[in-house]
Parts: sequence; structure tokens; C-alpha cells
Amino acid sequence: MLYFDHAASSFPKPKEVGEAMKEAVDLFAANPGRGGHALSQQAASVVKRTRAELASLFEAPGEKHVWFYQNATMALNQAILGFPFEEGDHILSTAYEHNSVLRPLKVLEDEVGVKISYVEPNEQHQFEIHDVLTHLTDKTRMVIVSHASNVTGALFPIQELAEKLKNHSAILLVDASQTAGKVDIQMQRDGIDLLAFAGHKGLMGPQGTGVLISDKDYLLKPLIHGGTGTSSEQDYQPESWPERYEAGTLNTPGIAGLHAGVQAVKQMGITSIREHEEGLMQQFLEGVSELESVHCYGPEALGDRVAVISFHVKHSSSHEVAMILDSSYQMAVRAGLHCAPKTHLHLGTIQDGLVRVSFGPYNTSKEVDELIGAIKEIEEAFTD
Amino acid sequence: MLYFDHAASSFPKPKEVGEAMKEAVDLFAANPGRGGHALSQQAASVVKRTRAELASLFEAPGEKHVWFYQNATMALNQAILGFPFEEGDHILSTAYEHNSVLRPLKVLEDEVGVKISYVEPNEQHQFEIHDVLTHLTDKTRMVIVSHASNVTGALFPIQELAEKLKNHSAILLVDASQTAGKVDIQMQRDGIDLLAFAGHKGLMGPQGTGVLISDKDYLLKPLIHGGTGTSSEQDYQPESWPERYEAGTLNTPGIAGLHAGVQAVKQMGITSIREHEEGLMQQFLEGVSELESVHCYGPEALGDRVAVISFHVKHSSSHEVAMILDSSYQMAVRAGLHCAPKTHLHLGTIQDGLVRVSFGPYNTSKEVDELIGAIKEIEEAFTD
Repeated sequence: MLYFDHAASSFPKPKEVGEAMKEAVDLFAANPGRGGHALSQQAASVVKRTRAELASLFEAPGEKHVWFYQNATMALNQAILGFPFEEGDHILSTAYEHNSVLRPLKVLEDEVGVKISYVEPNEQHQFEIHDVLTHLTDKTRMVIVSHASNVTGALFPIQELAEKLKNHSAILLVDASQTAGKVDIQMQRDGIDLLAFAGHKGLMGPQGTGVLISDKDYLLKPLIHGGTGTSSEQDYQPESWPERYEAGTLNTPGIAGLHAGVQAVKQMGITSIREHEEGLMQQFLEGVSELESVHCYGPEALGDRVAVISFHVKHSSSHEVAMILDSSYQMAVRAGLHCAPKTHLHLGTIQDGLVRVSFGPYNTSKEVDELIGAIKEIEEAFTD
Repeated sequence: MLYFDHAASSFPKPKEVGEAMKEAVDLFAANPGRGGHALSQQAASVVKRTRAELASLFEAPGEKHVWFYQNATMALNQAILGFPFEEGDHILSTAYEHNSVLRPLKVLEDEVGVKISYVEPNEQHQFEIHDVLTHLTDKTRMVIVSHASNVTGALFPIQELAEKLKNHSAILLVDASQTAGKVDIQMQRDGIDLLAFAGHKGLMGPQGTGVLISDKDYLLKPLIHGGTGTSSEQDYQPESWPERYEAGTLNTPGIAGLHAGVQAVKQMGITSIREHEEGLMQQFLEGVSELESVHCYGPEALGDRVAVISFHVKHSSSHEVAMILDSSYQMAVRAGLHCAPKTHLHLGTIQDGLVRVSFGPYNTSKEVDELIGAIKEIEEAFTD
């Protein structure tokens, strides 16, 4: 099977990922931070090492600022539902967010009475900062943007936005699920206050891992309450980080796998990965641009996007095309709404969605050629 | 290292657990339920199979009633914080709960204005149903009990309680973290409405897995909101189960590992595991009963407890004893409060906690002999 669904989860994983997980389970499956004995310490040290790696990779102030969750969704929920919003507060977000942002926002709107603006992009599917800023008010307490859309691949100009927010009290939460491990992100340089991402996409780790990094103390309320292995006598989550935001047993094997994934990414180098994926993206976009019935969405300039490309084949439904790619060509892509309904509303594709292909570091130019060939055949079948 | 910390996490795991996880990562690390292609389907089928296994093992109405989380803490949070409590509602619980129950209850008390009673056990550290029932009021909407204390090992007479609750509208939430995989649990037979447990303890699965099973629809509000792979156009979590209660990407390799753990448990047989652990517990209790300076807590009758035993060695601190067992004898036990402060308050051991040993299916009689021998030497050293 040729795999073009990296935006959902990367595959294959570096072989070290599965090995590290097996090792964690076979050799030190004790509970990290819940006992002083050697096996528990060994488990805890893997967790600590991974925190340190991520803190360094994303320029966090320290490892305690790195909190582990089951997935990016939970990391985003902790940031959004955990923030001490009050009635009448304003949140500025975009029409290109994933349901992992949209749905918690809806809860805040209903239950707290927060007001939310969803900025729309321009005709090239890109956000213009002066547009975004027109929605900023003195009640705006948080700005939430996807670093890259999981439908159009459009990159958001984070640094430019952060620069403008410098003199505003609103904090910036970035959903880097489509960019962590694929685009260079430095929290200090880029002005990011809260950074959430999945461990199993660009960072090549296993499913079961998501991360929230908090630059400073934004007084987030913990979302989950329970055992923390420290300050057990207290009625509340302890004040100390990361325990405050990580109740219950951590996913040690998953975190060990994430550590191996991050090592692989660092070894390849994020710049090289970006160049490689940009090359595949260019090849794909140029290839399908010759197919009359195929229409691609997203920015034209390669520098404005990541290798997540959604398209429509005239006279076909997105699910039909994906099914044919799967069953007749053994190619994995994803059809539908990609959990991003407002994006498809904006694109005018809410009824049927789009076919999405997304590339990873192990995809090859030959594979992309085969993909273009398959789409060409499918296009011809539907045009006949 | 001799491992006696099964109450925190079981170790070693059956070798199939690590193998299943590695297989999931190496062969089908695609996102389950987020694409129609073959690899995504393969991932989804492992998840589905595990749901079905757990539904069958615990006598749930069906696989959709089985929801996966990062840990038991999150499963308990979903049940407790998700329940539609209103101000003035009453919750009946016990002094022997873990912080994964106590801390969410504190949140409900502070934020919703729920009243909570924590029933205390009798002098044998056991709960008497008539005692429990004296706290039941017509405002009691939920009764929350640990199936077995993670400190004293005392089993709660679930069936007897459920029988008495039959004519009351309160629902019964059972925290089976110390018993799932070790004691036979049948939700229908036992009258359990909500059952929460860890996957990485008695069920022999990996860390990163916790489960909530809901017998009927108790109108729980989802705790986490995000992508569900279905009904993406909706602003809210879908009504359908399990998607409603499982936002974001699931921990496929962890769930694959849990499936392998459950298979191993079924192969050994829960009755055999129980008999084996009861034997080790008896051996240990009898062995240390001869040591004058060692005092064990918990019920005397083996049938009233699981193989989780906390003790104190005169003139020593619990952390000292655990450290010596670790460094001089290579034995893993756990000292302190075990995230159960009210239990230690009740036992009068809140200052220093206790040393806890807990046995698993792979522990042997010879290991327990060595443990007793080590404790004897430590006792002598502290008595000198």
C-alpha cells in the first residue's frame, strides 16, 4: 500500500519507535513517578528525557512546561477549556480550525458566554494579518490559530501575528498538529504562548501521544483531576508542574515511542524534511494541474503551505475517489470533511468534502508519480 | 529485580503485549476510524475487537458501551465530572477512595455545590452495607466505591450494595482499578451502572489505557470535545457511542497491547489468577505475622481482600523500608500515601504512609519467601 495520509497519522514509523515501545513494555513497565524503585525510576527517566527533548526542539522555557496527553485534542481542550475565561470575554480564531478547536469553543460559547470571531481567509485561502487584527478587541483574551490547515495545507503567518499581539494582553494558542516535526517552530522566536500538537504525525511517534507546551503560567485550570504521585495529601491538583496538568498514569510506552520518533526527525532534520515534502508537493501540484477535471485547493506558492493537498475530481464524489484509490490502486488517502467543517463551508465543499493527500518524509517521487497516474485514470473514467 | 508493585502497574507484561504494540506501530499505524483505506480499517478493527472483548469480559450490553481513555483517572473523571449533577445533589462515597475519585469530587463540591458523604469502614477496614445505607438520601444521585482499596486491599461488597440500591434512583459507579482482571466482575449480575478501570494493572495491558463502561445512557456530558471521524459537520460531539465520549485519535498501539493483555488473562483464567494471588497473600500475611515489629493493615479473611497489603515496620519510615528493599534487595514495592490520603487518615498513617506490596500472576511463592526474609532482616536492623 502507498500511504498518502500523513495528515491523519504518519506511516511507516521509524523502526526505532516500535522497538522503543516494546522495550518500555518488556523491560520497565512500572509506573513512572509512582514509586522510588529502580523500575519506576527507569520509566520516569524516559518521560523526563522526552520532555527535555521536546522543550529543546520547540524552545520551551524548560521540561516542566511540556505536558503529555492522549492526543492533540486533549492538549487543545486543556488549553481552551482550562483557560479562566469569563462571560463576555472574546476569542479570536479562524474558519480553518479543526473540530478539536471548534467544538471546545462551542462549549465555551454555550456555557461561559464567551464571544468568538472566526476570521475567514482571502481567495488564495490565506489569512491576512490586517484582516485578523480588525477582529481584535480589548476583550480578546486568546487568539487560536492552526499553524497549517489540515484541509488546504495553508500556513498561517504566526510570527507576523505574534508581533502584532505583543502590545495586546491576548495570548496566542497555536495548533501545530500539521506542522510539528515538519516546519521549524520556536516558541520564543515565534511568539507562541501555548503550543499544542500530536505526537503521531510529523513527529513520527505513536498514537496515544499529544502535547501541550505552556510558555508561562496562564492560570489554566486542570481539566483532569486525580493521582499525581506528589502532594497526595492535598484535596486539589498540586501547584507544581507538570503534575498539575497530568493526572493519572502516563503512557510510558507511547512517550518512549515519541522519543524515538523525535530522534528520527532530528536525524533527518526538519529543514530536510520540509524540502523533501515541498518537492513532492510541487511534483503533485504540477502533475495534477495538467488534469482538466481535477481542481486543487489551497495557496499556490509552495512556501505558503505544507504538503497537505485537497482536491476534487469533476463528476465524482470524494468518497468514491478515495475508495477507488484504496481498492484498485492500494493507495491510502482521506475523503470527506477531515473534521474541519468550517473550512469546507468556506471552500463550498461541505456537501461532499474533498479528497486529501498528504505526504511524509518516507514518500518518494516515484510514489507521487504513481499517485498522479492513478488520479489521471480515475479522472478519465469519470469524464467518459 | 523482584517486582511487588502490581497495584501501580503490572510487570512483567505477557510478551504478547509488547509484540502486539510493535505490530500495530510497524504494520498499521494509520488513524483508526479516520479514513476508509485498508490501513485505517485494520487499525479500527483492532480497536473494535478490544471493545468487544472487554464488553464480553465485564458483561457490558455491547461494544459501544466501552470507551477508551489514557488512564483510569480520565475514565473516572468522565464519569464523575460528566454526570449532570445539580446544586444540592448528594454523592455517597467512601473514605477509601483514590485521588482519582476524591479530587474530581472536590471539584464538584466547589463548583457545582454537590454534597458528598465519605463513609468510613469498620475496625476490620471493611464497609458494612447498613452503615453505607444510613448515608443514602433521596438526593443521592451517585454512589461511588472502589471495588478494592489500593491501600488495604479490602474488597467492597458491590453486589450487596447494588441489591439495596435497586429501588433507589442513585446509580453505582465502581472503580475497579485494583480488581479488573483479578476478581470476576459482571456488570449485569453485580448491578454496576458505570465501571472504570485501568488497562495496565490486572488486565496486563500497557500504560496509556483506561476504560469506562456505561451500562445505560446516564446523560453524561463529554469531557473532551473534538474530532470524532463521524458527523464532522456538527458543532457538538455526536450523539452516537462510543464517538461521543472519545474525541481525538485513539491510542491504537496501546489498545492492541491491552487486547493481548486481556487474552493472557483469559488464558490464565481470572479464577486461577485469584487463587494464585490469594495463596501468595496468605503466605505473606502468615510469614510477616511472626515478625513482632511488622503490622499489616486490611481485613484478615482472604476472601475479603485482594493481594494488596500495606504494613508498617516499627521504628522505621515507610520510605526508608522501601528504599532498602529497592537498593539492598532489588525488590520493588511502594511507600507513602498511594494517592489515597483519606485512607491513611482513617488508618492513622497520614504522616508517614505505609509500605505496600502487591502481587501479580507471575509472582512465585519463592519470591514471596525472599520478600518475607528481607523484611525480617530490615525489621531486625530497626529493632536493634
